[in-house]
Amino acid sequence: MDEVRIIEIKKSVFEDNDRDADLLRDELKKKGVFLLNLMSSPGSGKTTTLIRTINALKDKINIAVLEADIDSDVDAKKIYAATGVQSVQLHTGGMCHLDAEMTRQGLDGLDLESVDLAILENVGNLVCPAEFDTGATDNCMILSVPEGHDKPLKYPLMFSICDLVLINKIDVAPYFDFDFDKCEEYIKMRNPAARVIRICAKTGEGIDEFSKWILSRIKIAKGV
Amino acid sequence: MDEVRIIEIKKSVFEDNDRDADLLRDELKKKGVFLLNLMSSPGSGKTTTLIRTINALKDKINIAVLEADIDSDVDAKKIYAATGVQSVQLHTGGMCHLDAEMTRQGLDGLDLESVDLAILENVGNLVCPAEFDTGATDNCMILSVPEGHDKPLKYPLMFSICDLVLINKIDVAPYFDFDFDKCEEYIKMRNPAARVIRICAKTGEGIDEFSKWILSRIKIAKGV
Repeated sequence: MDEVRIIEIKKSVFEDNDRDADLLRDELKKKGVFLLNLMSSPGSGKTTTLIRTINALKDKINIAVLEADIDSDVDAKKIYAATGVQSVQLHTGGMCHLDAEMTRQGLDGLDLESVDLAILENVGNLVCPAEFDTGATDNCMILSVPEGHDKPLKYPLMFSICDLVLINKIDVAPYFDFDFDKCEEYIKMRNPAARVIRICAKTGEGIDEFSKWILSRIKIAKGV
Repeated sequence: MDEVRIIEIKKSVFEDNDRDADLLRDELKKKGVFLLNLMSSPGSGKTTTLIRTINALKDKINIAVLEADIDSDVDAKKIYAATGVQSVQLHTGGMCHLDAEMTRQGLDGLDLESVDLAILENVGNLVCPAEFDTGATDNCMILSVPEGHDKPLKYPLMFSICDLVLINKIDVAPYFDFDFDKCEEYIKMRNPAARVIRICAKTGEGIDEFSKWILSRIKIAKGV
């Protein structure tokens, strides 16, 4: 594949998203594909984090990317140009989240043969994406320093469903009133099992730790 | 009123939100209340901007605040403590936006007698709040520098419905790749009529211009 496809996602007809998500998760497990659902507010650094992480991992495993956006196609093009991995752009047609069926429509646009890791960059939104199981193996979110350490108090569901919280843009921490200890305390309040990793996607700090986390989770999912 | 009330918002039963929003707008106009709907991503600085602006305006006009949040009540308490104006906290019960009927439920919790300006701080979300007319006289949004100048490309509806875009956190611009000219160009692409004001809620820069904009819009709405 040498260019980025755009897929106009259709609204789901499935009544029972949770059941559909479980079905998709099973199918992916059988195919040996680990699906990581990456969520955050707009502008938290999802795409930059992905580019860094894919470049750190692409010689070890096969990766494919689903980029969900309401309208533009800049992210999928950016990912493909910077990493060379197969990427599809999903247009949600104004919708604020992806569910399992919409995710499936996106996965159908990829060649999953020999793919180990598929990453879904969800719509930038801390509310709705948390309410819909996409069928992902694991959920991960990015909270960036400029957003403030109180976000786990205000968007409880998002923090409670994530296996991993990346705290991004730590390079600008000196210019913001961001309390890392309080932030981690609030995250644990919502989700005691969540892992927290501090990163700076711009400089690459912490990306190694994030990459190792992904590899270890793939191993656990494969049962090896 | 010497403390902050919390109102648990009920889901709307109205089928036709646009009609209901027009009704609410008319009612408010008759009462002489200008309703400003303030929207943004999580962590863009809505509450800090409000505190600065209310303190700049409260000796000139009577102000009341509706703080919408999924769960916490920190914002309404913060507003009341920092400004002394009447504030109610609206709990949306997980919902990602407010519509006209939900806004009405919030307004019913305020004493609107002699209020000139009611400000609704909407749920932090660049997608869903743009889809529901709240009945506000004017819509305003905040885009903060750390989110990036490409947001009008990715969240077109939000930018197209706003009368005013505040670009906040301009003090940290040297630490981010934020192109102000491009940002304004993208905003105009979505909405040629939108006014853009650069502010820094932390230092107070630009708040005077924002306050003047509010006063001029109130005058226009009152037809004086």
